[in-house]
Amino acid sequence: MTEKKTWSDRFETSLHPAIAEFNASIGFDIELIEYDIAGSIAHAQMLAHTGIISAEEGEQLVRGLQQILQEYQRGEFQPTIDAEDVHFAVERRLTELTGDVGKKLHTARSRNDQVGTDTRLYLRDKIGDIQARLREFQRVLINIASENIETLIPGYTHLQRAQPLSLAHHLLAYVEMTQRDGERLADVCKRVNISPLGSGALAGTTFPIDRHYSAKLLGFDRPYANSLDGVSDRDFAIEFACSASLIMVHLSRLAEEIILWSSEEFRFVILKDSCATGSSIMPQKKNPDVPELVRGKTGRVFGHLQGLLVLMKGLPLAYNKDLQDDKEALFDTVKTVQACVQAMTILMEEGIGFRRDRLQNAVESDFSNATDVADYLAAKGVPFREAYNLVGKVVKTSLAGGKLLKDLTLEEWQALHPAFAEDIYEAIAPRQVVAARNSYGGTGFTRVKEAVDSARDRLDSSF
Amino acid sequence: MTEKKTWSDRFETSLHPAIAEFNASIGFDIELIEYDIAGSIAHAQMLAHTGIISAEEGEQLVRGLQQILQEYQRGEFQPTIDAEDVHFAVERRLTELTGDVGKKLHTARSRNDQVGTDTRLYLRDKIGDIQARLREFQRVLINIASENIETLIPGYTHLQRAQPLSLAHHLLAYVEMTQRDGERLADVCKRVNISPLGSGALAGTTFPIDRHYSAKLLGFDRPYANSLDGVSDRDFAIEFACSASLIMVHLSRLAEEIILWSSEEFRFVILKDSCATGSSIMPQKKNPDVPELVRGKTGRVFGHLQGLLVLMKGLPLAYNKDLQDDKEALFDTVKTVQACVQAMTILMEEGIGFRRDRLQNAVESDFSNATDVADYLAAKGVPFREAYNLVGKVVKTSLAGGKLLKDLTLEEWQALHPAFAEDIYEAIAPRQVVAARNSYGGTGFTRVKEAVDSARDRLDSSF
Amino acid sequence: MTEKKTWSDRFETSLHPAIAEFNASIGFDIELIEYDIAGSIAHAQMLAHTGIISAEEGEQLVRGLQQILQEYQRGEFQPTIDAEDVHFAVERRLTELTGDVGKKLHTARSRNDQVGTDTRLYLRDKIGDIQARLREFQRVLINIASENIETLIPGYTHLQRAQPLSLAHHLLAYVEMTQRDGERLADVCKRVNISPLGSGALAGTTFPIDRHYSAKLLGFDRPYANSLDGVSDRDFAIEFACSASLIMVHLSRLAEEIILWSSEEFRFVILKDSCATGSSIMPQKKNPDVPELVRGKTGRVFGHLQGLLVLMKGLPLAYNKDLQDDKEALFDTVKTVQACVQAMTILMEEGIGFRRDRLQNAVESDFSNATDVADYLAAKGVPFREAYNLVGKVVKTSLAGGKLLKDLTLEEWQALHPAFAEDIYEAIAPRQVVAARNSYGGTGFTRVKEAVDSARDRLDSSF
Amino acid sequence: MTEKKTWSDRFETSLHPAIAEFNASIGFDIELIEYDIAGSIAHAQMLAHTGIISAEEGEQLVRGLQQILQEYQRGEFQPTIDAEDVHFAVERRLTELTGDVGKKLHTARSRNDQVGTDTRLYLRDKIGDIQARLREFQRVLINIASENIETLIPGYTHLQRAQPLSLAHHLLAYVEMTQRDGERLADVCKRVNISPLGSGALAGTTFPIDRHYSAKLLGFDRPYANSLDGVSDRDFAIEFACSASLIMVHLSRLAEEIILWSSEEFRFVILKDSCATGSSIMPQKKNPDVPELVRGKTGRVFGHLQGLLVLMKGLPLAYNKDLQDDKEALFDTVKTVQACVQAMTILMEEGIGFRRDRLQNAVESDFSNATDVADYLAAKGVPFREAYNLVGKVVKTSLAGGKLLKDLTLEEWQALHPAFAEDIYEAIAPRQVVAARNSYGGTGFTRVKEAVDSARDRLDSSF
Repeated sequence: MTEKKTWSDRFETSLHPAIAEFNASIGFDIELIEYDIAGSIAHAQMLAHTGIISAEEGEQLVRGLQQILQEYQRGEFQPTIDAEDVHFAVERRLTELTGDVGKKLHTARSRNDQVGTDTRLYLRDKIGDIQARLREFQRVLINIASENIETLIPGYTHLQRAQPLSLAHHLLAYVEMTQRDGERLADVCKRVNISPLGSGALAGTTFPIDRHYSAKLLGFDRPYANSLDGVSDRDFAIEFACSASLIMVHLSRLAEEIILWSSEEFRFVILKDSCATGSSIMPQKKNPDVPELVRGKTGRVFGHLQGLLVLMKGLPLAYNKDLQDDKEALFDTVKTVQACVQAMTILMEEGIGFRRDRLQNAVESDFSNATDVADYLAAKGVPFREAYNLVGKVVKTSLAGGKLLKDLTLEEWQALHPAFAEDIYEAIAPRQVVAARNSYGGTGFTRVKEAVDSARDRLDSSF
Repeated sequence: MTEKKTWSDRFETSLHPAIAEFNASIGFDIELIEYDIAGSIAHAQMLAHTGIISAEEGEQLVRGLQQILQEYQRGEFQPTIDAEDVHFAVERRLTELTGDVGKKLHTARSRNDQVGTDTRLYLRDKIGDIQARLREFQRVLINIASENIETLIPGYTHLQRAQPLSLAHHLLAYVEMTQRDGERLADVCKRVNISPLGSGALAGTTFPIDRHYSAKLLGFDRPYANSLDGVSDRDFAIEFACSASLIMVHLSRLAEEIILWSSEEFRFVILKDSCATGSSIMPQKKNPDVPELVRGKTGRVFGHLQGLLVLMKGLPLAYNKDLQDDKEALFDTVKTVQACVQAMTILMEEGIGFRRDRLQNAVESDFSNATDVADYLAAKGVPFREAYNLVGKVVKTSLAGGKLLKDLTLEEWQALHPAFAEDIYEAIAPRQVVAARNSYGGTGFTRVKEAVDSARDRLDSSF
Repeated sequence: MTEKKTWSDRFETSLHPAIAEFNASIGFDIELIEYDIAGSIAHAQMLAHTGIISAEEGEQLVRGLQQILQEYQRGEFQPTIDAEDVHFAVERRLTELTGDVGKKLHTARSRNDQVGTDTRLYLRDKIGDIQARLREFQRVLINIASENIETLIPGYTHLQRAQPLSLAHHLLAYVEMTQRDGERLADVCKRVNISPLGSGALAGTTFPIDRHYSAKLLGFDRPYANSLDGVSDRDFAIEFACSASLIMVHLSRLAEEIILWSSEEFRFVILKDSCATGSSIMPQKKNPDVPELVRGKTGRVFGHLQGLLVLMKGLPLAYNKDLQDDKEALFDTVKTVQACVQAMTILMEEGIGFRRDRLQNAVESDFSNATDVADYLAAKGVPFREAYNLVGKVVKTSLAGGKLLKDLTLEEWQALHPAFAEDIYEAIAPRQVVAARNSYGGTGFTRVKEAVDSARDRLDSSF
Repeated sequence: MTEKKTWSDRFETSLHPAIAEFNASIGFDIELIEYDIAGSIAHAQMLAHTGIISAEEGEQLVRGLQQILQEYQRGEFQPTIDAEDVHFAVERRLTELTGDVGKKLHTARSRNDQVGTDTRLYLRDKIGDIQARLREFQRVLINIASENIETLIPGYTHLQRAQPLSLAHHLLAYVEMTQRDGERLADVCKRVNISPLGSGALAGTTFPIDRHYSAKLLGFDRPYANSLDGVSDRDFAIEFACSASLIMVHLSRLAEEIILWSSEEFRFVILKDSCATGSSIMPQKKNPDVPELVRGKTGRVFGHLQGLLVLMKGLPLAYNKDLQDDKEALFDTVKTVQACVQAMTILMEEGIGFRRDRLQNAVESDFSNATDVADYLAAKGVPFREAYNLVGKVVKTSLAGGKLLKDLTLEEWQALHPAFAEDIYEAIAPRQVVAARNSYGGTGFTRVKEAVDSARDRLDSSF
């Protein structure tokens, strides 16, 4: 039997040790300790501010809590499992340090609003960090883009060559995705940054607390307007996990492309030794482990999102112990996303090199200029659907004859349709094909240059 | 073999009929037809506006498209599977109606940007509808709340009686949750309401289109800044599915409570015949089918969210056919959420009645006023943790003696601690216990009255 | 207000029409009608067999039920929404046909055990069908394999060329996966094929029924041993959904490979017109829609699995209305898997052709024979890890010099290590590299030939 | 930069330290060390058995590996992150211990088949442990059941009182569910217990290995028949995660019931102090934390299942680094299920006590005997549907009059239908109502007694 718990004398016997271990969260919620202490300091200051405790008591509590933080940071304070959770661990140590005053800290507060406060402070912090990492990732992509506005790369739909692209344009698509990610996180943060502190166990408190005061001390936008909601809401964690899942979707797409590009068949990029690994048995191997792992970790993050949703399904109000199991999913989601954004940033910055020779060669030897022939005719008044069918026929014939479109003679073109003239060759040259897609958001060089500049400008703002 | 498809003459043989059926989306994307036509009208107007087609051609296209919409609404236009998808079905009919002009509609456009446009128009519409339904649900809850500010109900944590509550306060927690839902949908809409039209197949177009013009005609905030992103982004659908999942989390919690409340053991509410069902075999049964179904449908919506995330994982840019499979999940998510919000609204409005006698009786016969004894002592200077332990002991003794706290004599109280005085009885009366939790967001009647008023005021604004 | 429901006179008013629609399952459970009728026939026969009804009554019921089936199959019996569900629809029609006798059908039965019976009969049937489709898929793969035992194809790990393979060996990996799928379904079926009939609403019945008799009539292995479990168990549906998810995992892997193989970069296969589609705008495109859709539909099936699990979480015993929502997920899982297995079978059989020239060329021009050099040395006594490092160095030098291993002279080999002799050239020729991996389960031709034969033999047995 | 990795000299520079950390699995795959050593011992013995290495070398390797295991168990061998993974860590230490011989261990093996072997050995072990825990859980339930065959408890559908039950019958439903769980795990094990060892990197090996020999040494049923499948199959982990999810479904259902039963409203059970916890603020609280946590952890396990499925979606053959991310999900699934089964076993064995007074009182004061009135009439020849409607009417009247069915006079009964006689009172007494449901699998005492005996007999067999 473990030592008696901190709860009331209503209990006679102590917890079965296996159950104590099963219930304990100290193994993982220690991650919250600095946020827990910050929350307690603000709570103590509010208690003193409102006269619920004396100013002197308030100062004692704050000093005691600051000391615990230092002890923790110096590795001197290491709560063990009999503390059950980080909150009790801190309160117990505080009582050791300050005597009876320590016992006043929990006045007008419950673990339910306390843990909610800790978790929101934690997540607000981590969201800021992830946003900063996304900016860094964008910076790297924009740098590569700015040097590759006129580098051509095949563009694909259905993984079939579709139309050639500016490499910069391709990379900027990921800048747009991660821009949404950053902005979405900012929206999530609006619903993270609300203070449950002072919601009590579920119903508020009889003490004359000032929730706006403690909320302000902690940098929250406002307190929760309903105490039941305050202690039982986990929307913010789920919303974050969904945003994290979308970040992983985006990274997994780029990861997939890098895996393809570094294959023998594509050879669009070279993997550098500093970001690739070998095989334990095949001496020639150089493997794109980073993007593979990122792609793999996508499942882990999706899984956490699901886990959190399932956790909340059908729980009656207000707090239920089930909610304790939100922590590990949340923490691992944060760490996974942090690590994946960072790893992809390093990979893009120093782990791969684009092979311009291979890229140039690729765009010159396929039929990805076929749409331009159809557009050429449509621009000369041939209804698009008719032009399109005609070009389909040309492609088929050329394929059979082992030719590309550029290999057709002017006679051959004109035999197909009298509207063709000498300028058809210019119209289907890869560089021109790309340059001509000058519609807003398109791959035309002018547009891409503008897009690089505007993305770079945006880098300086926060999300 | 089915009739030849609308794609180019590059193809010699037609599709295997089983494959044609497998590929076809017309069975479900017909849901998009009005949005597809709206998108095509805007595209045609833009083509005319920019001079890519003549004004006359533009008008012909618009008239033809309007006619198709009317034919569809009158049930005269019913595309069959050989049309493959709604886009080809409309274009084919348009060509029947307008001849060669119809073949010009697809100039400077691809199915990839087209279907993206349709889906966003659809979802923007449905989000508006869901927000309106959430408002209606809130209205019903606020009405009940306003009549039950001083109705007491046991408050629970861990499904154990914790502290008594104002029934209004309990219901307002759901108003807060759905308020977040509505606001979250508004945030999602910022990322739904962007126009991919003019992104072309993936790279933009060589035609001098005006994407801002068509975006404006369709009410979009702006066009996508990157064409690759424009055709391959499905974040908006996933973000919506996550918001829908959170709505279901909230509804499932209320559903669970109503199921509990209508049980023989709780009997806090009466289920009315108009919203309950019987058993095929047990003649006495009256079952809370509505909240059970709502709780059950939570899984379906979570599943769709997961399905959509999985769909996107690791897809290389840009469009891939996989994306076609986003429709059914999206449509069913919309319909499920619409139906569940509506059903819960009807249920709350006319399907249940609160039994005030049972509620009052409940709050008078338990120990949910024990915190107030501890607070009573703490307010008189006893350190909270000490007071708490003492009350735990009282509860244990009382339970053993079959007594409630109100049954203790003043002598008994004072034997426990000299600080107790006559006012302890007032302090632990249920009505006072609730009234005293007057902290911001708490269940005190003054606070709840303010909260009802402020929630009602908010009803008039949109999310 | 809709017509009064079939439940008891305990109810005074009828259902709110929107609620009636929300509750009704007839829109989708009509899918079960033939199984519902089969279950009812067996139930009627059991009632007569045990003397609960007379033999004559039993025959009337059976004849009536058979007639309803025929009416349904002829399109004459089409239940509408006011029937609520397929069970009531059939019972109501039966009473029209047989009068008071019809009202006896539901003796000693509840909808809870009835719908459980229907669903298991349905799923048992569909599992058999899916197993048959898997066999057909295997047959096609084995046929291609048997013609390609000595066709070489690059083998990959990390999508990097690793070691060359027999194409047959590669395809047989999928035969093994689907073999597990079929066997797993057989295991699932052990838990599907148990009869809940006679479990009543939850507690069994007071009538002297013979559950073993009705179970036997319906081909069930045995009746459920516990009535509560019988009516509330949905393990079988979830287990099936997991097996279906694994089928989709396997199909998605092959789908991914075909998408890669049909890309311009790989060109290992040609997509035939009958199984490919074009673009609405790019006339040259031929897209692998089938494997893309299969890959996409993977998410849908995973989502249904998740939905079903969530549905069941935390439901108290026994039946809850939530369970009604298991149907659509189950039906769509069945249909999706059926369609995907079939589509992939057609695709492999007639939709793609392997380009042996490209495959041969591929295996001759890379370093995928490097392991064989290490093995060559290891076989001559050089410790494996040393040999491995040495070969790594050779690869680096060769890459730098633009050479392949086969281009090194004997002197160069011997300069690296004296153990090299003339037979090194034979050892690293692609055909020999494949042939030499003759360990059990390896890609050596002898092994692959055996594997093809043994897979073909297995085709004749059921899973 | 970290120390150079064990891979080949093809690499010039070392890994970026952040990438090294991102790639490393040693932080979690150390969990596999004993299985890794067991697998290596069998591999070494096979190499000696087939003469690939000498008998002396084989013995040196085995002795070295045994020493490493001892060092690990004594805490002397603690691999750090620069070892990358457990396999390299062991191989490196082995080479320190045995010199050049250690470098031969990896002959004819790859990390791909090695890690697959380790994971299967691990999981086979853990499945056995979970099965044993399920048996223990069943034993506890059967013990309670055997003492409560004639204890009555209300039976519910839709959480509405339906028909009274034997408490034993209710608990045996969970014995049936966990019986399926155990049997399902046995089925899963058939697909876990197959040896990938000797599959090499993907293609088998050129060495004359004997895979059946090493498989037999390790207790595997047989080797994988296809090397590509052998290294890339993770079905077994997913199938296990699905079985684990079903165990959690079952536990979550019982957990939900215990939470309900221990509420103030039900009070069917008393929570004992050794398995309950208090509140940090409400001194009267005694909370069912164990079942709440179990219910909560359901989401975590479902999440891991999804994570693993997502991981595998669309991966081309054969091994991809993504697969490394299967470990943590698998390990946490194992640990969570182990802990939850154990916690629920302790809870049932010593954490709750059924309150027979409350249970008896409950079944005597409701309408859950109404079906028996209908059955009574049906047994006297009144068509069931007619009898059912009549009883519905009686219930309605009685409810209105504040009566129970047992309160009706014989005249009142006969006024309703002449078939009623004096024996109606016996027929509707709760004890008789339960006793009479004597159909196979029903709640009748005779049946339940048989079911307890048969469940107890089954306990002695393994699943």
